[in-house]
Amino acid sequence: MNHFYDEKLRREKVFRDPIHGQIIVDNQIIMDLINTLEFQRLRRIKQLGTSSFTFHGAEHSRFGHCLGVYEITRQMCNYFQRNYPSKSAGDGLWNDEERPVALCAALLHDLGHGPYSHTFEHIFHTNHEQITRQLITDSSTNINKILRRVSPDFPHQVASVIDHTYHNPQVVQMISSQVDADRMDYLQRDAYYTGTNYGKFDLDRVLHVMRPVKGGIAFEISGMHAVEDYIISRLQMYLQVYFHPVSRSMEVILDHLLMRAKYIYQHPNDFEPDFTPHMLMPFFNNHFNLNDYLALDDGVLTTYFIHWTHSRDDILSDLASRFLNRRPFKSVIYDKNTQELLPTLRNLIQTAGFNSQYYTAVNDSFKLPYDTYHPQDSNAQTQIELLQPNGDFIELSQVSTLVASVSGREAGDQRFFFPKEMLESRDNIEIFEPIYEEFQSYIKNNHIIKPKE
Amino acid sequence: MNHFYDEKLRREKVFRDPIHGQIIVDNQIIMDLINTLEFQRLRRIKQLGTSSFTFHGAEHSRFGHCLGVYEITRQMCNYFQRNYPSKSAGDGLWNDEERPVALCAALLHDLGHGPYSHTFEHIFHTNHEQITRQLITDSSTNINKILRRVSPDFPHQVASVIDHTYHNPQVVQMISSQVDADRMDYLQRDAYYTGTNYGKFDLDRVLHVMRPVKGGIAFEISGMHAVEDYIISRLQMYLQVYFHPVSRSMEVILDHLLMRAKYIYQHPNDFEPDFTPHMLMPFFNNHFNLNDYLALDDGVLTTYFIHWTHSRDDILSDLASRFLNRRPFKSVIYDKNTQELLPTLRNLIQTAGFNSQYYTAVNDSFKLPYDTYHPQDSNAQTQIELLQPNGDFIELSQVSTLVASVSGREAGDQRFFFPKEMLESRDNIEIFEPIYEEFQSYIKNNHIIKPKE
Amino acid sequence: MNHFYDEKLRREKVFRDPIHGQIIVDNQIIMDLINTLEFQRLRRIKQLGTSSFTFHGAEHSRFGHCLGVYEITRQMCNYFQRNYPSKSAGDGLWNDEERPVALCAALLHDLGHGPYSHTFEHIFHTNHEQITRQLITDSSTNINKILRRVSPDFPHQVASVIDHTYHNPQVVQMISSQVDADRMDYLQRDAYYTGTNYGKFDLDRVLHVMRPVKGGIAFEISGMHAVEDYIISRLQMYLQVYFHPVSRSMEVILDHLLMRAKYIYQHPNDFEPDFTPHMLMPFFNNHFNLNDYLALDDGVLTTYFIHWTHSRDDILSDLASRFLNRRPFKSVIYDKNTQELLPTLRNLIQTAGFNSQYYTAVNDSFKLPYDTYHPQDSNAQTQIELLQPNGDFIELSQVSTLVASVSGREAGDQRFFFPKEMLESRDNIEIFEPIYEEFQSYIKNNHIIKPKE
Amino acid sequence: MNHFYDEKLRREKVFRDPIHGQIIVDNQIIMDLINTLEFQRLRRIKQLGTSSFTFHGAEHSRFGHCLGVYEITRQMCNYFQRNYPSKSAGDGLWNDEERPVALCAALLHDLGHGPYSHTFEHIFHTNHEQITRQLITDSSTNINKILRRVSPDFPHQVASVIDHTYHNPQVVQMISSQVDADRMDYLQRDAYYTGTNYGKFDLDRVLHVMRPVKGGIAFEISGMHAVEDYIISRLQMYLQVYFHPVSRSMEVILDHLLMRAKYIYQHPNDFEPDFTPHMLMPFFNNHFNLNDYLALDDGVLTTYFIHWTHSRDDILSDLASRFLNRRPFKSVIYDKNTQELLPTLRNLIQTAGFNSQYYTAVNDSFKLPYDTYHPQDSNAQTQIELLQPNGDFIELSQVSTLVASVSGREAGDQRFFFPKEMLESRDNIEIFEPIYEEFQSYIKNNHIIKPKE
Repeated sequence: MNHFYDEKLRREKVFRDPIHGQIIVDNQIIMDLINTLEFQRLRRIKQLGTSSFTFHGAEHSRFGHCLGVYEITRQMCNYFQRNYPSKSAGDGLWNDEERPVALCAALLHDLGHGPYSHTFEHIFHTNHEQITRQLITDSSTNINKILRRVSPDFPHQVASVIDHTYHNPQVVQMISSQVDADRMDYLQRDAYYTGTNYGKFDLDRVLHVMRPVKGGIAFEISGMHAVEDYIISRLQMYLQVYFHPVSRSMEVILDHLLMRAKYIYQHPNDFEPDFTPHMLMPFFNNHFNLNDYLALDDGVLTTYFIHWTHSRDDILSDLASRFLNRRPFKSVIYDKNTQELLPTLRNLIQTAGFNSQYYTAVNDSFKLPYDTYHPQDSNAQTQIELLQPNGDFIELSQVSTLVASVSGREAGDQRFFFPKEMLESRDNIEIFEPIYEEFQSYIKNNHIIKPKE
Repeated sequence: MNHFYDEKLRREKVFRDPIHGQIIVDNQIIMDLINTLEFQRLRRIKQLGTSSFTFHGAEHSRFGHCLGVYEITRQMCNYFQRNYPSKSAGDGLWNDEERPVALCAALLHDLGHGPYSHTFEHIFHTNHEQITRQLITDSSTNINKILRRVSPDFPHQVASVIDHTYHNPQVVQMISSQVDADRMDYLQRDAYYTGTNYGKFDLDRVLHVMRPVKGGIAFEISGMHAVEDYIISRLQMYLQVYFHPVSRSMEVILDHLLMRAKYIYQHPNDFEPDFTPHMLMPFFNNHFNLNDYLALDDGVLTTYFIHWTHSRDDILSDLASRFLNRRPFKSVIYDKNTQELLPTLRNLIQTAGFNSQYYTAVNDSFKLPYDTYHPQDSNAQTQIELLQPNGDFIELSQVSTLVASVSGREAGDQRFFFPKEMLESRDNIEIFEPIYEEFQSYIKNNHIIKPKE
Repeated sequence: MNHFYDEKLRREKVFRDPIHGQIIVDNQIIMDLINTLEFQRLRRIKQLGTSSFTFHGAEHSRFGHCLGVYEITRQMCNYFQRNYPSKSAGDGLWNDEERPVALCAALLHDLGHGPYSHTFEHIFHTNHEQITRQLITDSSTNINKILRRVSPDFPHQVASVIDHTYHNPQVVQMISSQVDADRMDYLQRDAYYTGTNYGKFDLDRVLHVMRPVKGGIAFEISGMHAVEDYIISRLQMYLQVYFHPVSRSMEVILDHLLMRAKYIYQHPNDFEPDFTPHMLMPFFNNHFNLNDYLALDDGVLTTYFIHWTHSRDDILSDLASRFLNRRPFKSVIYDKNTQELLPTLRNLIQTAGFNSQYYTAVNDSFKLPYDTYHPQDSNAQTQIELLQPNGDFIELSQVSTLVASVSGREAGDQRFFFPKEMLESRDNIEIFEPIYEEFQSYIKNNHIIKPKE
Repeated sequence: MNHFYDEKLRREKVFRDPIHGQIIVDNQIIMDLINTLEFQRLRRIKQLGTSSFTFHGAEHSRFGHCLGVYEITRQMCNYFQRNYPSKSAGDGLWNDEERPVALCAALLHDLGHGPYSHTFEHIFHTNHEQITRQLITDSSTNINKILRRVSPDFPHQVASVIDHTYHNPQVVQMISSQVDADRMDYLQRDAYYTGTNYGKFDLDRVLHVMRPVKGGIAFEISGMHAVEDYIISRLQMYLQVYFHPVSRSMEVILDHLLMRAKYIYQHPNDFEPDFTPHMLMPFFNNHFNLNDYLALDDGVLTTYFIHWTHSRDDILSDLASRFLNRRPFKSVIYDKNTQELLPTLRNLIQTAGFNSQYYTAVNDSFKLPYDTYHPQDSNAQTQIELLQPNGDFIELSQVSTLVASVSGREAGDQRFFFPKEMLESRDNIEIFEPIYEEFQSYIKNNHIIKPKE
């Protein structure tokens, strides 16, 4: 028995949103989920992490994104219900009884994200997906309590959509597939806030050519170009925004800063005799609970960083200062031919006075713009199926030259990061001049090269 | 001797900005100012404080706004130089030698803002304008060092523009007047991020009808409607966005939270035996220096608030939780006739179990949408002068019915804030039911009324 | 018996629209109405007549506007049905059985417009409202045949909505009231195409605060500012766009050109011995039928004008050329004090060699931005009612200072138009120099003045 | 001696434009060119011909586009002059003395377009490029007279830019190359008016990475993605907008309509004994002068079409009516394998009662999205060169996977057009039923197929 509609609001409520105009809520369950501390906390976690160091406008939090995914999912349900209502079980059309689970999964899909998730998870071995699941299914959370008003099993249903194990693939694909509400919201939203044009595809048009089918969600072939445009927009956002070298450089600094803090904590020394960043200690100790996790946000981390700029540990204080005051490392591209030169470059940097463990890094950022279905892959993606007038399906890259050209080929680059100082002429430190010159001889047009002997 | 142009960049650099598209920097002085820690810190201070609790999209920082004011000022200089270049001193036209001081003042005009400035200043008696001045003129700051590369006197010139004491009123009015680069940027920017439409006026058109005149800056009469539209847009933004009752409510909670923290610090008790929020203590003690101030940002405050949710002081922990998890007070409008009822209402609230010092508040938000010049006023605003074809000036409200209708009349309201619980039927606490009912008898259509006997 | 829903489309069809994104049609009746020759003809009639001579972007036709009014009405019906569905007759809520008549009236409300309607009607005494009615109710039209598929009486119902005589005031006010789908579409649309900002109000927000009430449509008081913004936007569009002096000047030329053509037709002379503009002749003769009218469009008129540039009638050819090649008259403002000077000015113009009947004109453009209800007025407008939490209504100007300031006061001006040549120094025609000088002595700052003796 | 700057305006004038915001004119020569009848006539010629039958918003004329190309060129000159001013002849940098010829060529590049140019040229063998050249260089035109005020040779210089024979390739490539002001304006403009998203690339960013080099114009490699995005946007606009089957279908009808009219004129018959469309006769007779051409516009053609709907020639009247009332042919895709079936299909259509010469057509629309330079080609396009930090060039498709995937491969399709009636079941004409069924057996999923025997 599903009690979702028992809590229908008499009048719709509206969140004004710069991307969707209005986000409409007509159910008390949804309102209450939004008002939990677990959800409100997303206001204090930036959606794009270090990207705002590159695109200063992109300071938006995960809060708005989660509302946006909810709104797109709501519009999908409406469109499906208007145009493809199921008449009998198993007819492959849309059963509107799936709406509650779809809306809640959409709203909550990113609930477990912490501050600077990617880096944080790298250093502390946390997992935001697992935490999302816990926040939904653990009976101690406010989220769980609210979801249980729908039915005892409802929290697990919602979690299973996010886990991709829910029985109805239409619902799963609404929230997570190559063209889902999640991606459609963040591309539009991140484009809006960065002020770039790349992520702007025609959302209305894509929604209008979606249709429920037996195995999930397909697209009318008449909308092929709208889907194609979305795929290309997504690729452009990865290459232009998400993989921007300056953002990645700031992420490298953040990573090394947290690594250094962890090291200091685990190796107390004279410089930092009393290093006790309380809110991080559960994570330094690999022993944290949900409340420890929920207490963290971007501001907590930067507050520690502000403290650390006064540390007597030079590496800690310098990296903290580089992060807070936006002094990114420089980077150059390398490939499998020039990879062998990295130790040489690291040595030069060490010789020039930088601890190369903390002052160099490699980072590869690659994205598979699109791929056909490979059932043998552990993390196989669904492919995009287009529906022809006679009812046959055809896979997207069969009809789109553009998509075919990027399908199955990872886009991105591998970069080596190092202090900007290595590229500067520093007359005042003449002693290092030959080192700088040698270092620079390995670099040309932003790539590592093998210098001519 | 002005060395600004010695540092012209060979190629323009660009900040991508969602409002202006591109923010163009062609001088190393400007780049270096942006890269100081004083300026980078503005990334960690939200432009609109608690407004993002109402308009979730409006999480942007002061950093982008400051760049935007710079950009508008740059465009003004360009436009004036193309169309109204001074030919001889005192001809009332634009002398492009004023560009360096105009650009730097524009960029730095908000440098002294701290976290949630309005509230912070209220509780701690700081003054962001004075701190801006210090950050520019104190020889210890990075900002000052960079400005001195232009000339020894340059920091004081820049500060004097911000102080309105600079000798050339054109420059002063560019940065601060009824139609200045500051307001023009924030109206557009805040409209963009809130997703509201109210702040959208035609910036290009307003810039195009500005012109330098002897006493400052005037407007071609042909552009009257563009200026009028700007005035009305500004008023709408105040009434719809800046004065939104929910944002003010969250500000009230913040204010009372900081007030309570200060009280606890100054009155140590058993509940909080070791209350030592280090970064705030200089302010609790009314004894802080520039570095203490520069160490603060939004994240530092919210980090303390997260700690305080665990306080054994009920008021501190409850207010901290209300702020972090967005549980605003409700509010109703009162006026001079119903003001006398406030003590009664406070008593009822106290009786219902809330400390009325912390759980009630009044807040009046009024804005003078426009006014003509009143030289006797301490803080007299310049009035807007329109230039007619024959060279005569006419003041804006003389020709605009709309502006005349709002000129000299403050818009806004006075509100009384109280816990939402007072409006709810709470069956489980029957004992308070009559109090709630009596309280509610004083409220009708969001106003305080005198109940009929 | 209403057969509208018998013709529901299996899948929604979409018109891509720059204003609304998508215009959704889910019924064959609507599709068929759009595909009639009567409706397609609207593609060849510009929405804004001569305004594109001022705002070159505004070349859009009435076709898109009519679709837009349909779309807004559709959204109103959806919103009302979701939030205010009628439960019993006379409860003042929305009865969705009104949807067919609302949608058809919205779509067809401007069907009778001809080329440059305002001017055309002035010269030829046609009436686009009456023709709209005929096109809907005359059994010979395609429109009528399609509407009759719904029910025999349906055409008259649709016409009665447009006539304001339909029994349900909610439907009438959707299409025609101070805040209706018609005005809401054209303000947004005309702002988009002109590239001005003035007409941009928050359509979503206004729609969201509308609600059906017993006497028609009211607005939640929480949306007061959205409605206020709409009223002010509308006023600004009138003053800035619709009343632009250059557009009015081109309209004056058009008016005089058609007047001259009519004169020549009615007074055959040697210059134009064979003046037979066939498609206009029914109108010159005051004897036309629906087909004569439907054959006209903007292109037919301009085609005649192109012919007429070769006329041996100097006035006809010169005015045709001024219109086609955009050579507007100049204009100045006068008022009741300076009105007495018009004969003097006309004389000067005549003396300078221009036939003052064709080369001068007066035009007053005034708009009542808003007004309260005056039942005694022949053409009384409904006033805007706001609904308070306790269910009471309050009239808009009671709570909005801005609206109060413009309510009941006509905005606009009176202008006198004359050839630009009167303002130019024309050294080559020295003989007229004193006339020009005298003429110019009556003009100052774009107003007619009484020159000092 | 160049007298362009003698005519600098004291104050800039502004055209408000929905795409560029403001189009700024600061020279009387430019103003006077815009005010000629030759240029004003562009207001009466739609930019996108029959596309507005598909995208109803796209009713804009060539007038705004020409202003837009001027504006982009102006911005290029400004950017080049600020960042890459030539210091000595032949240094490959920008010589601002080229500005007058660049601006005039930009403004006038489309001057020779007539109504529905593509179709008109097909039927009447006119050539808009040649007419553009004549309008600029023929001493009888107003355009020529104005240009000669700059210098006697100036008209020929302007024409030579449009002809690609001007000596400075930078100027030629500004106006005509793979990334030129012409394409950049129309992509943005057509996207705006159609309401599609496809043509929106980042104009500011592309302009900002352009730079003059010795052989023309190159792009900073840092802007690779912006250029790539432009190329892909352009391709999408071709596939989605310019090649839309409905627009092409309406063009086919227009083509056959004019073809029929020409045939009737050349073969007088009893049905149309007095067929004398005066303004078209010079073109029917292959003997026209500039004035004949300048008298034509979209409205003249549609006026004739309105007349022709009353023709007793069934084909002429039916095609005229299909065009005016938007009743497009249907179309299906064929390829070289199914091309052999076209005669069979035409026969079926003829048998069903349609004259297959007028009621069927083939149309192939292909676009080379990008190509590298092939000097042997008659119409060789310049390739896009990116400039690396060390000064080396690299061709775009060498670094962009996306561009490489579309480079040198034509995109588009071949379609066969036929009356919609062939796809409808028409119970009332049973006699043709078997023909329709056979016809439909050749069609599947919008393609011609070989039916299974």
